[in-house]
Amino acid sequence: MNLEPVAVVGASGYSGEELVRLLSRHPGVDLVALTSRQLAGQTMETVFPKFSGLRYSHLPFIESDVEKIVATGARYVFLALPHGVAAEFARPLVAAGLRVIDLSADFRLKDPVVYQDFYGEPPHAPELAALSVYGLPEIYREQIRTAQLVASPGCYPTSAIVPLYPLLKQRLLQPGSIVINSLSGVSGAGRNAKTDLLYVECNESVRAYSVPKHRHLGEIEQELSNAYGEAVTVSFTPHLIPVNRGIATTIYAMPANGIGLADITKAFQAAYAEEPFIRLLGEKGTPDTKNVTFTNFVDVAWRHDPRTGRIILLSAEDNLVKGAAGQAVQSLNIMCGWPETTALL
Amino acid sequence: MNLEPVAVVGASGYSGEELVRLLSRHPGVDLVALTSRQLAGQTMETVFPKFSGLRYSHLPFIESDVEKIVATGARYVFLALPHGVAAEFARPLVAAGLRVIDLSADFRLKDPVVYQDFYGEPPHAPELAALSVYGLPEIYREQIRTAQLVASPGCYPTSAIVPLYPLLKQRLLQPGSIVINSLSGVSGAGRNAKTDLLYVECNESVRAYSVPKHRHLGEIEQELSNAYGEAVTVSFTPHLIPVNRGIATTIYAMPANGIGLADITKAFQAAYAEEPFIRLLGEKGTPDTKNVTFTNFVDVAWRHDPRTGRIILLSAEDNLVKGAAGQAVQSLNIMCGWPETTALL
Amino acid sequence: MNLEPVAVVGASGYSGEELVRLLSRHPGVDLVALTSRQLAGQTMETVFPKFSGLRYSHLPFIESDVEKIVATGARYVFLALPHGVAAEFARPLVAAGLRVIDLSADFRLKDPVVYQDFYGEPPHAPELAALSVYGLPEIYREQIRTAQLVASPGCYPTSAIVPLYPLLKQRLLQPGSIVINSLSGVSGAGRNAKTDLLYVECNESVRAYSVPKHRHLGEIEQELSNAYGEAVTVSFTPHLIPVNRGIATTIYAMPANGIGLADITKAFQAAYAEEPFIRLLGEKGTPDTKNVTFTNFVDVAWRHDPRTGRIILLSAEDNLVKGAAGQAVQSLNIMCGWPETTALL
Amino acid sequence: MNLEPVAVVGASGYSGEELVRLLSRHPGVDLVALTSRQLAGQTMETVFPKFSGLRYSHLPFIESDVEKIVATGARYVFLALPHGVAAEFARPLVAAGLRVIDLSADFRLKDPVVYQDFYGEPPHAPELAALSVYGLPEIYREQIRTAQLVASPGCYPTSAIVPLYPLLKQRLLQPGSIVINSLSGVSGAGRNAKTDLLYVECNESVRAYSVPKHRHLGEIEQELSNAYGEAVTVSFTPHLIPVNRGIATTIYAMPANGIGLADITKAFQAAYAEEPFIRLLGEKGTPDTKNVTFTNFVDVAWRHDPRTGRIILLSAEDNLVKGAAGQAVQSLNIMCGWPETTALL
Repeated sequence: MNLEPVAVVGASGYSGEELVRLLSRHPGVDLVALTSRQLAGQTMETVFPKFSGLRYSHLPFIESDVEKIVATGARYVFLALPHGVAAEFARPLVAAGLRVIDLSADFRLKDPVVYQDFYGEPPHAPELAALSVYGLPEIYREQIRTAQLVASPGCYPTSAIVPLYPLLKQRLLQPGSIVINSLSGVSGAGRNAKTDLLYVECNESVRAYSVPKHRHLGEIEQELSNAYGEAVTVSFTPHLIPVNRGIATTIYAMPANGIGLADITKAFQAAYAEEPFIRLLGEKGTPDTKNVTFTNFVDVAWRHDPRTGRIILLSAEDNLVKGAAGQAVQSLNIMCGWPETTALL
Repeated sequence: MNLEPVAVVGASGYSGEELVRLLSRHPGVDLVALTSRQLAGQTMETVFPKFSGLRYSHLPFIESDVEKIVATGARYVFLALPHGVAAEFARPLVAAGLRVIDLSADFRLKDPVVYQDFYGEPPHAPELAALSVYGLPEIYREQIRTAQLVASPGCYPTSAIVPLYPLLKQRLLQPGSIVINSLSGVSGAGRNAKTDLLYVECNESVRAYSVPKHRHLGEIEQELSNAYGEAVTVSFTPHLIPVNRGIATTIYAMPANGIGLADITKAFQAAYAEEPFIRLLGEKGTPDTKNVTFTNFVDVAWRHDPRTGRIILLSAEDNLVKGAAGQAVQSLNIMCGWPETTALL
Repeated sequence: MNLEPVAVVGASGYSGEELVRLLSRHPGVDLVALTSRQLAGQTMETVFPKFSGLRYSHLPFIESDVEKIVATGARYVFLALPHGVAAEFARPLVAAGLRVIDLSADFRLKDPVVYQDFYGEPPHAPELAALSVYGLPEIYREQIRTAQLVASPGCYPTSAIVPLYPLLKQRLLQPGSIVINSLSGVSGAGRNAKTDLLYVECNESVRAYSVPKHRHLGEIEQELSNAYGEAVTVSFTPHLIPVNRGIATTIYAMPANGIGLADITKAFQAAYAEEPFIRLLGEKGTPDTKNVTFTNFVDVAWRHDPRTGRIILLSAEDNLVKGAAGQAVQSLNIMCGWPETTALL
Repeated sequence: MNLEPVAVVGASGYSGEELVRLLSRHPGVDLVALTSRQLAGQTMETVFPKFSGLRYSHLPFIESDVEKIVATGARYVFLALPHGVAAEFARPLVAAGLRVIDLSADFRLKDPVVYQDFYGEPPHAPELAALSVYGLPEIYREQIRTAQLVASPGCYPTSAIVPLYPLLKQRLLQPGSIVINSLSGVSGAGRNAKTDLLYVECNESVRAYSVPKHRHLGEIEQELSNAYGEAVTVSFTPHLIPVNRGIATTIYAMPANGIGLADITKAFQAAYAEEPFIRLLGEKGTPDTKNVTFTNFVDVAWRHDPRTGRIILLSAEDNLVKGAAGQAVQSLNIMCGWPETTALL
């Protein structure tokens, strides 16, 4: 396996930490830089004691500075930064010829109007958004292969798009009937010292939030619309639940005229039977976040409810792996021509 | 306050334990008997060390035997038993003139066909089911007052019926569009020594179950149909989440023609402004189970999503209190003519 | 029961919130003021949605200002403030003739040198510390009755002093052999927006901290020395564990010459058999925090290990109730001449 | 790397499952058999849905039968069985020339009298116990290399022996003063459908158990005595805490005459500086179970308390990895001449 120099910019949050965990075990990766505004000068093991004793534990964090990053010789750069900040780094890095995998929302939305609608401000680098590839390998594998800029999907969108995309692509569902209900572990909210995210506030607590218009909705609808071939608008409600990791998503939709459970099953088989990270649990299985945490799998199951006529889709993933860092590494594997499951199984 | 002799039959499960907790602090209750097949002979504090030092901690459990219960002089009896078993006790106790509050499913469903459909067996005492009152005080307060047999509602149904009932009653929603998504703490599954309910299996785990036809669905639809005046069929998906107590329910529905958020708000105000246990959090509030655990409150909030047109209803309750024991005590208070909040605030 | 006007100063933290929970149900208390620098102007239910619908839910927070507090007519004041700040309020309030129950560390340590040693600064009102009463009713009940200033004990100290005091008082243990190992829920660290206290950092984590010299050690040793009649120095290690509430303490000590398990049992019986909040689980029982959370009980059990000769003492309490707010209310009950268990059983 | 055929007997519990997780990623292992009395006939992915899609997910469980195991050609066998049962398998497997790594207690105690004392029955294969090697590589690496039967250590013993062994070996501590206080996640109690291990009973609960004589104490004392060169007797108290995985151990001991913190530090450096799985956090670090879960590391830190004179040792490990399956795989690596960290970093 050819060794590629890789940098992680903004490695102090949960997604950055998860990237470091995965890349430390990647046989093709030469991790040449970890950057962080606040942590520059500290070694990786000081910041993440859990990684002490691993391959890069003595690697020092450097400043999040474009020139310094380029100077490390990195050819691939992961951006694990807040939206807005990511664009500031992506622009010069892309200009310098590096290939960038961005985990923020900066490049996910192709339409600047949609970005403005969901983020309350104009996109930070719309010219790059137009060129970027949405980093969901199960849909955009070929484009990722040659992409210079990958916009790695959000955690909720991955859990919703994976089950819905093939069904909408084949027009098996009535798009106006789609209701997406998601439950996420607390790491999805980031390593932010906010009172609401304190242990005592989250433990023994369950709550919906951002009802009815969470930011990830724009991204979900963009991809569902792509699949369906016309604009799709859906309901989406995220909930915070007391686990560290994991998203469980339950989706309700009316089938298109004449469509039955067998059609759904067939569509899933056709789309995902060969996918290494999509596990089809079928018409009787039940996804459980504990089966996917610390893995890059998305588990998917489905039901038909004869009483209401609805199709019910169930998915589970790890928000930090398939929902963030793992999916980004999956893109890296594709970009580098490595086996797609490298460091992910 | 007049003192009434009360018995709890089958006090070894979580609902029974919660009844004991509430009744121990109830100024109108003279707890004359706790019964349990397995625990007969043991004192209450041996079984529930947490209640040691409280009023009835030395009360011995007796056999779950109708004659013995009647012999204690109890005039009010709570049944915290599995369905089927509850009916066996209710029949002779009612015949002996005692007033019974049953926490099982035996008398909740008025239609034997529906019971058969959801429980896979004929109802155990259909003649009593017909006479019983569904013990949701916010709807059936007057009937509870004089009832001899109260069928106390299930935990999920309470969390769904409370927000939906007044809106369907006034025909503000399209009933066919209703999707109910619920998240419950593990105590809802009872104190059963099953592998699936072990700490390690539930902690760091989230999963849907009983999709698409959980037993509580029959009960939900019965009451929603009562409200609407014709048969209502809905989708309902329960999920198990790692908390001890609490149910969070998120409901999606299309408003009836011409109905807006203000109508919803008005309907909630009209129905519940004076209710001591329904807290209306309004168009901006967000129910959180941590605000209702160990209380008899149901918190309710609502939204209109202009993008999809849907109304979203959010509720939170403690499955063991308003979803079980607390609601049963609320019925007792009504039956005895006591202030309805006695021992519950 | 005579009604007494009571204020809570600094009611925004976990201890303050717990005070509000307890006082809201107290038949002798007229809650006349809640104060908080940051929350002034907001109603209690806005700050604590869980208390909405309770007795004082519409009470507005006022400024934490001595004159304003005095102007409310309060005769009893709870201070739930950081140490240092508490002293600033206690001094004028005491001077104004109010009776003060302070939950901070400001008045617990009688010896200014010890305060300096453990808090790294001189005591903030040493003249008041000298006059104050250490608010552990099981030891200082009579002094509390007439105290003008009660220094309510820390959470860890309560869990250690309760089991050790009577044994040292009777010189049944070798004081130099005492090792105290404590495990505390995260609410003990306060409602502070620190990264270390985030859900994801505390969940699935167990860690010792402040080894070997936690601040509460000074307080523990002061009271053990009082019991023994000469200076006692002990080892004490606190650990943070992922529960909201609860402290479990395990203590190891060599018995004094000739002392056996029966002597220990006798001493506990003599000291605590009549105490309403000390539950003696004996030579075979095992305290479990889940039996004491949301109560004012301390559960105590003990063992003799014939292999090592050591006595092992086990205790459990709720750090926010008997370890903070409950114990403070217990003092209030004593000061007001009310039954000591009022609002606490 | 030469490929070795390996079997796991009794793979249905948590240790067995963890073995499967680790061996699935082991480049030297050809997993030829998984056995289980109850699960025979089912595939691995049916039993462990989380391993679906991994290397051995279609491997069927076979009967736990010695002849069948031998027939698979396995040369290395892990026994993840209850004590007593393990001996029944070990005897014929060893006789058949297979090399056995046993995770039960059957062969850990060399002295039959000690086994009888702690397990309440005679050892099941004392002749094998005498031949077996205690599988703690940091102490017995050379013996493990050629062992035919490895008795893999218990979870608590590993967490206590690792920090204490080198200090006692060099006689830096007074053995009679040693107090070991351990906190373990619930997986340590096994996948047993017992009421005490239900989610609701363990969540929001902390409790000591098996005081003062847990079964692992015999094993701890055996190894500490080996280190010290004469019989050592210690206090040990385990506690159950609400995490899935992880043991945190806090140890108190008086140093030998004239020994200071520098001597302790030197001894740890000398013993463990080169060990790949012992991370020395030093005089200021603090082990936290969250840094070691899902790894084979033991983190160790230490303090001197000038006030009491005591040395305090802190350790953290994952009870299922270094405390069970990981350590067993570490032994396999040594036995096979593979790099010791294979599949474990």
